[in-house]
Amino acid sequence: MQYVKIKDAIVEQIESGMLSARQKLPSERKLAESFSTTRVTLREALSLLEAEGRLYREDRRGWFIAPNPLRYNPSQPLGFYDLALAQNRVPSNVVLSAKAMLANKDSSRLLNLAPFSDVFCIERVRCLESRPVAHVTNYVHPERCPNLLQLDLTTSLTQAYRAHYSMEYHQVHYHVSISILSGEIAQALRATVGTPAMKIERTHKDAQGNTIDCQVEYWRHDGISIESVSELCREN
Amino acid sequence: MQYVKIKDAIVEQIESGMLSARQKLPSERKLAESFSTTRVTLREALSLLEAEGRLYREDRRGWFIAPNPLRYNPSQPLGFYDLALAQNRVPSNVVLSAKAMLANKDSSRLLNLAPFSDVFCIERVRCLESRPVAHVTNYVHPERCPNLLQLDLTTSLTQAYRAHYSMEYHQVHYHVSISILSGEIAQALRATVGTPAMKIERTHKDAQGNTIDCQVEYWRHDGISIESVSELCREN
Repeated sequence: MQYVKIKDAIVEQIESGMLSARQKLPSERKLAESFSTTRVTLREALSLLEAEGRLYREDRRGWFIAPNPLRYNPSQPLGFYDLALAQNRVPSNVVLSAKAMLANKDSSRLLNLAPFSDVFCIERVRCLESRPVAHVTNYVHPERCPNLLQLDLTTSLTQAYRAHYSMEYHQVHYHVSISILSGEIAQALRATVGTPAMKIERTHKDAQGNTIDCQVEYWRHDGISIESVSELCREN
Repeated sequence: MQYVKIKDAIVEQIESGMLSARQKLPSERKLAESFSTTRVTLREALSLLEAEGRLYREDRRGWFIAPNPLRYNPSQPLGFYDLALAQNRVPSNVVLSAKAMLANKDSSRLLNLAPFSDVFCIERVRCLESRPVAHVTNYVHPERCPNLLQLDLTTSLTQAYRAHYSMEYHQVHYHVSISILSGEIAQALRATVGTPAMKIERTHKDAQGNTIDCQVEYWRHDGISIESVSELCREN
């Protein structure tokens, strides 16, 4: 199939270093010409590369070479900021909203709240090199973190908990599944509706076993790769 | 939006227990009638439910309520068989192929093989209650497991390693990402081309640090949920 050949040719150029991360590809018209193919066939190749996380598309701006995904180990305490810096990336957060509200379905379930409880809800977008990679919603008990919403929420929440409330994550319960982007979350991540995403739910507890907060993350599929090494402690 | 209301109505029926796992939904025509809507709107609702892993579709057979996904912790030693049994599921394997071959790209990379090495390649489909949920390819060093291909490969490989070759998994390196199903793998999982899937690569080592085997798994997105609890051992 011709589109597989075109795809392989582009992969080879990426792997050989001829095309580097975040580089813009020539227009579809020019690419189709240089591969002597139709735009329909070219698009099949590009879509396949997008599905594999090798390319990404931005509305009206064209196609770009995807940088490496962030290597993420959900069982580690490292927050997004430290993780990105350790991998020589440039992290930033954009706060979409920060408010007190009545607990919704997600927060009641994850924080085990009584009906009509108050909860702080912080919605942020995580960026790498200014490109959105994840939409994150944190839910926090207000009584554990009074005045949290007045702090600078563009920096690390983990550090804010430690500095202002002497709270330290001790245990994490996490849950990874595949979701499909739509609505405001797709928009915030500059993704087409229907793009698959990695959904990660985490609940954090302190050393006494009390829940500190929970978060619901939607990651662009090309933005994250979960990696870990574990000793298999078999109980005999 | 009307399709969201229809979706919520179906979710409510699932959560209340009125619709149970693997139950077939009425035909699209009948459903559209009972919700007083068009088939286009109905299909939007059904597709959303499919994306969320609540429903699955089988070619020409219609729509079904998805059973709970298998809860899977990639850092645990439990094999598919034991894991499924522990969750009251009925596991089985279908062997698609088992052969000796020259190492391909995946196996060279994961097993760190020299060019032109021989490797055993075993392709299987994992089923729960006879429904395919994962396509798994195992690559094994032939010198570590002579005659492996003559064994009954429909049962647990982990157990075969232990029983016949005294090899025990000691460490796992795993990698989780999102992939898109196509070609033979989509077909083996009875999935539409383009369906998102969870791709899990695992490399297993023994107590001496030697690689035993590696496997590349593609899970139907409605078949798996990765869950774990971890202590966060912060180094201070």
